Amino acid sequence: MLNHELDRLFQALADPTRRGLVERLTRGPASVSELAAPLPITLAAVVQHLQALEACGLVRTEKVGRVRTCRIEPAGLRAAEDWLRERRTAWERKLDRLADVLDEEE
Amino acid sequence: MLNHELDRLFQALADPTRRGLVERLTRGPASVSELAAPLPITLAAVVQHLQALEACGLVRTEKVGRVRTCRIEPAGLRAAEDWLRERRTAWERKLDRLADVLDEEE
Repeated sequence: MLNHELDRLFQALADPTRRGLVERLTRGPASVSELAAPLPITLAAVVQHLQALEACGLVRTEKVGRVRTCRIEPAGLRAAEDWLRERRTAWERKLDRLADVLDEEE
Repeated sequence: MLNHELDRLFQALADPTRRGLVERLTRGPASVSELAAPLPITLAAVVQHLQALEACGLVRTEKVGRVRTCRIEPAGLRAAEDWLRERRTAWERKLDRLADVLDEEE
């Protein structure tokens, strides 16, 4: 994944309303109006958040007739997760090698 | 982890310079000037990025004499990773249940 794509992905996740939408969609697909109904913001604001989630690959939407249905796009979640896991495991391997060196010196 | 802490964490990760600093620190601790040396930005800008990484729990710094040493804080990486993994696996469980229902209907 390119640097500017990761920028957009983490930027999209940095907002509590957008994380709430992601969380709701992991329980199943929903229409834009179903997503907006419980939220204390305007429909236009929800649409904007959904566009940000779609642009970075976390959500996929499809319009049939007058209803736009939104689904989670697990590849987006996985891309962000992979980036974090790779850095964490790199650090853990580094710590393990350090422990080995200390063992040898004993 | 609280919502505003996740906001700060993902916000910190949404910048390529800050992700670069995290990446560098997974290879081992470094002083602020070692971190700044290869970067095309001012020392003050590096310090600001490090403060953002420290505030959200991705980096820990310690000053001994005149040298500030920076280390990765793996708990920060893990917190962001956990949030993403929990949502992804919730969605995968949902898909599995859906597949079961379809199997039963056949």
